Amino acid sequence: MSIDATLKALGIELPAPPKPVASYVPAVLVGDLLYLSGMLPFRDGQVVITGKLGDGVTVERGAEAARLALLNALAVVKHELGSLDRVQRIVRVVGHVASAAGFAQQPAVINGASDLLVQIFGESGRHARVALGAAELPLHAAIELELLVQVKHS
Amino acid sequence: MSIDATLKALGIELPAPPKPVASYVPAVLVGDLLYLSGMLPFRDGQVVITGKLGDGVTVERGAEAARLALLNALAVVKHELGSLDRVQRIVRVVGHVASAAGFAQQPAVINGASDLLVQIFGESGRHARVALGAAELPLHAAIELELLVQVKHS
Amino acid sequence: MSIDATLKALGIELPAPPKPVASYVPAVLVGDLLYLSGMLPFRDGQVVITGKLGDGVTVERGAEAARLALLNALAVVKHELGSLDRVQRIVRVVGHVASAAGFAQQPAVINGASDLLVQIFGESGRHARVALGAAELPLHAAIELELLVQVKHS
Repeated sequence: MSIDATLKALGIELPAPPKPVASYVPAVLVGDLLYLSGMLPFRDGQVVITGKLGDGVTVERGAEAARLALLNALAVVKHELGSLDRVQRIVRVVGHVASAAGFAQQPAVINGASDLLVQIFGESGRHARVALGAAELPLHAAIELELLVQVKHS
Repeated sequence: MSIDATLKALGIELPAPPKPVASYVPAVLVGDLLYLSGMLPFRDGQVVITGKLGDGVTVERGAEAARLALLNALAVVKHELGSLDRVQRIVRVVGHVASAAGFAQQPAVINGASDLLVQIFGESGRHARVALGAAELPLHAAIELELLVQVKHS
Repeated sequence: MSIDATLKALGIELPAPPKPVASYVPAVLVGDLLYLSGMLPFRDGQVVITGKLGDGVTVERGAEAARLALLNALAVVKHELGSLDRVQRIVRVVGHVASAAGFAQQPAVINGASDLLVQIFGESGRHARVALGAAELPLHAAIELELLVQVKHS
């Protein structure tokens, strides 16, 4: 089954990939590694899940933000590679969670992205992961994700 | 001298490697680069050094946390590669230090890991390094470490 | 035009590269990738732009700090490679912005580095980017930059 078919079966529709901005780009491919820019929980050009975990944003809502940021990341990967079937392995995910004082459940929040990666890519979706608590994030986003992806030899 | 012999001479015993969890894995090998998940100061399945630097956790205690997180990382590397003698180079270490307002000695804290890497691996242990102050870390850990390791061609 | 000539035309003089310290090094080259240590806004051995964005440090001043940290990074790259003409691509930049509560303009701050990279390297300077808000940074620096650089085959 293609990844697109898997996405369809999961009822997942990818957003439009975030537009390239002035001096940086959404992703850079070096050899077989695709480095992505930091991804926020964008929908229709807006960060839709803002605020801090431990201060008004629940773990469930944070996990939803992680999932949405991941969909933005996958939209970029698809745009860069032409097809998500060219993903060999999700190598590494860093999840930055905007955290109010005392919040320590960053792993549960980032599971929103990690679990979805395995649902979509199976074993190839199992990644090294770093979960961190950020003081602040761009545009007051609740979550920011970094992805490193290995691409199949073509 | 093998790295195991060096560890023994230094009186260092590695902990059991942290267990793989649901959707992510302790490390991913791509080509000759081993990417590790974020490592916390675990002992016997518990984060044993918690709290913030600059608010109850001293630099010395923080350096001990960095050292313990590193031992967890090396346990993962050994488990993945079979032997620490397969380490070609420690490429990069990122040290996240849970920091109370005004704390700026992150480098001294992360030296707990950096110095030990050179004791164990000699010149091959000299790495690029990033020391950062985090707002919060998973499970209230005082320290989280990221490692990137180059593996010898086998 | 060589990169040195471009720098001259832009009126930019690189600082002396930050000195190697005890157990880590300014950069590690693996294959064709050069990993740099975290770079602070150093001038003459001092961090010259300190404090937090959103609490006394303006976006303009933060962007200046990002630019200065980048010049330190480029000084390291030049020192490691012999010449900046050996840069194939700026792959990735992570910008950590010391952020007071509520500050969310990290991207505008890191543009100080991103825009300069494109001025200096043209298309090769367009990079994947991650902008983050840090609780605290070493030596009270306003900015810390991470760079990953692809090197030309020699």
